[in-house]
Amino acid sequence: MSETPERGFPEAEFAARTRRAQSLMADRQLSGLLLMTEPEVRYFSGFHTLFWQSPTRPWFLFVPAEGKPVAVIPEIGAALMRRTWIDDIRTWSAPAPADDGLSLLTELLSSLAARGDTIGVMKGHETSLRMPLGDYERLMAGLPGLKVADATGLIRSLRMVKSEAEIEKLAHICAIGSRTFAQVPAMAHEGLPLEELFRAFRREALAQGADDVPYLVGGADQGGYHDVISPPTRRPLQAGDILMLDTGASWDGYFCDFDRNYAIGHADDLSRRAYDVLWRATEAGVAAARPGATCRELFQAMRSVIAEMDDQGGDVGRLGHGLGMQLTEWPSHAAFDETVLEPNMVLTLEPSLGYGDGRIMVHEENIVVTESGARLLSTRAAPELPVI
Amino acid sequence: MSETPERGFPEAEFAARTRRAQSLMADRQLSGLLLMTEPEVRYFSGFHTLFWQSPTRPWFLFVPAEGKPVAVIPEIGAALMRRTWIDDIRTWSAPAPADDGLSLLTELLSSLAARGDTIGVMKGHETSLRMPLGDYERLMAGLPGLKVADATGLIRSLRMVKSEAEIEKLAHICAIGSRTFAQVPAMAHEGLPLEELFRAFRREALAQGADDVPYLVGGADQGGYHDVISPPTRRPLQAGDILMLDTGASWDGYFCDFDRNYAIGHADDLSRRAYDVLWRATEAGVAAARPGATCRELFQAMRSVIAEMDDQGGDVGRLGHGLGMQLTEWPSHAAFDETVLEPNMVLTLEPSLGYGDGRIMVHEENIVVTESGARLLSTRAAPELPVI
Repeated sequence: MSETPERGFPEAEFAARTRRAQSLMADRQLSGLLLMTEPEVRYFSGFHTLFWQSPTRPWFLFVPAEGKPVAVIPEIGAALMRRTWIDDIRTWSAPAPADDGLSLLTELLSSLAARGDTIGVMKGHETSLRMPLGDYERLMAGLPGLKVADATGLIRSLRMVKSEAEIEKLAHICAIGSRTFAQVPAMAHEGLPLEELFRAFRREALAQGADDVPYLVGGADQGGYHDVISPPTRRPLQAGDILMLDTGASWDGYFCDFDRNYAIGHADDLSRRAYDVLWRATEAGVAAARPGATCRELFQAMRSVIAEMDDQGGDVGRLGHGLGMQLTEWPSHAAFDETVLEPNMVLTLEPSLGYGDGRIMVHEENIVVTESGARLLSTRAAPELPVI
Repeated sequence: MSETPERGFPEAEFAARTRRAQSLMADRQLSGLLLMTEPEVRYFSGFHTLFWQSPTRPWFLFVPAEGKPVAVIPEIGAALMRRTWIDDIRTWSAPAPADDGLSLLTELLSSLAARGDTIGVMKGHETSLRMPLGDYERLMAGLPGLKVADATGLIRSLRMVKSEAEIEKLAHICAIGSRTFAQVPAMAHEGLPLEELFRAFRREALAQGADDVPYLVGGADQGGYHDVISPPTRRPLQAGDILMLDTGASWDGYFCDFDRNYAIGHADDLSRRAYDVLWRATEAGVAAARPGATCRELFQAMRSVIAEMDDQGGDVGRLGHGLGMQLTEWPSHAAFDETVLEPNMVLTLEPSLGYGDGRIMVHEENIVVTESGARLLSTRAAPELPVI
């Protein structure tokens, strides 16, 4: 078992992230970034709490053109924010529907608005507006002159390439996930309701050192499962089932995201063949994941193997994605994504195919891109469909 | 142990929810509701998956003025959506940054736009826009004539009052939470790192029947903890610590949300007194939570007891809230909230106070409002600070 990394990051990491952002902001003539989503606030501040589960209160972090970020947050978060590297912490007693941070934001941004400056807000693909839309509209109406540019590309380019400390955390949770999957043959058996297997899997992941298991989906059915995002049913596992579990476990705010397939009792030929095709598609993905290659090429490398059995490649829309503070991050291994791979990108490889009568199979591994190619963070799945 | 309720809901429940929404829509002259957040999509469709953890893909449910809702969703969710009562399911192969559902939405809404109709979108307090802001702006620009009204109040009035089946699920998860807390004295001991206690608590909650423990925060420190939203540290529990654990465990998509306080080894007088004040503030809240009372009155009933020790009442902004498909829901027990309590509202009572040198203590119970007053869903905390 590898040693547990340190929690959190040294201040230098947040300073470096902020400097890189400010350099990109200068290129784009942005006077600041107004961030409000959990990963972005945490990325620049280190503010880490499950309290984001509550939708009630908005949280804001402003990255100025120079200097440290400024936190504009509910008073309930002040004590925790004071433990980060942030100095300028402005709070209000939230919730306050009449003024949930808007006065504080207006005060912060009014000088920029008066100059006709542009700030960046995340408006692009894979983002949400984590404040009430009505409040956003009121805020902007109260800041005439302020221009808003989409900062998604800027943030994306920073977050896609991980630091050594981030990779260490990701490797740690991937190892925990791998050890957990190694116990599935001891947990799963004919007659066990799928719901109980999910519960046992979560408990095992925690015992193996995960902080949490925010994501666990899967399926089991005769000769193959039919979808890949369902919660479990009470249906007991049966001989002839193909079982899939896909987990996003987390440690210190970083995710693993991979799955494993098993046959219960015995495996049908078609499922064994699907498994073999996907296993080899994953190998093709591992081989293709080198600096300089594009996500589109990585997609095509996997797709060409999948085409042996399914020329549609399932309907999941892509064959893997970025991984880090979120279960799924940019980029996408898809025909539309021309992102060029760089060292220290952490990715999932997730080939899938449709087969038989409406069945689907999906494989997934986690890798980090290095100068010399992909390094697996998850323990590679067995080359043949394991039978439990 | 109470019997486990059925998972999911009968179709009649979704039909009734939809009819009630449509009746309110008629009052407000809305031709439809465009919903995109997990609880709202689930509330009207029954679509239940952890896949929302992935921020990549937007999901839409449109509630028309008449008839069943229409789903506009990524193809990866089609199989699961087909298992709900929804008939009209329109899908696209997502992610697709160039057109992530916008063409399908435009097609769906263009006849309403041509008539100059108004649709409802959630823009108000405690909401987010769960699609890219840039896509929302593009969608609206492509539908000239379409008016958008804030549907927050409409949805809020429906979701605040729970059905019998919802209350059964909430009672079930509150009972699981209560049984889990009952095991804390057997788990916690001097020398145990708080992080390990959190892990043990999560495992116990799963063993007691929870599907998941999405929320677990707390603190422990000499003579009292200092904030109430932190993740755990590796610091070992010490004699003289006041320990608090606050959990949001879930079953079938419904949450409990309550906490418990303990002293390790021995309790200091000030913490015992704070505990007593909060215990009695909770009693005052239970007594005040009757149909016809307002949240403001409930707040004041608790506040008047808290004032014995702290006339600020902490800085958490409110003394409890609604509970259901989310860890925190409307209403808020706060001076600003004039919501009138009705039977079948499920609420938390969460009095807190500041004491000593920057310490805070918080209590929490879960109740359902009935014709004859509050019924506790959580097993009432001990009247005196328990010593472990």
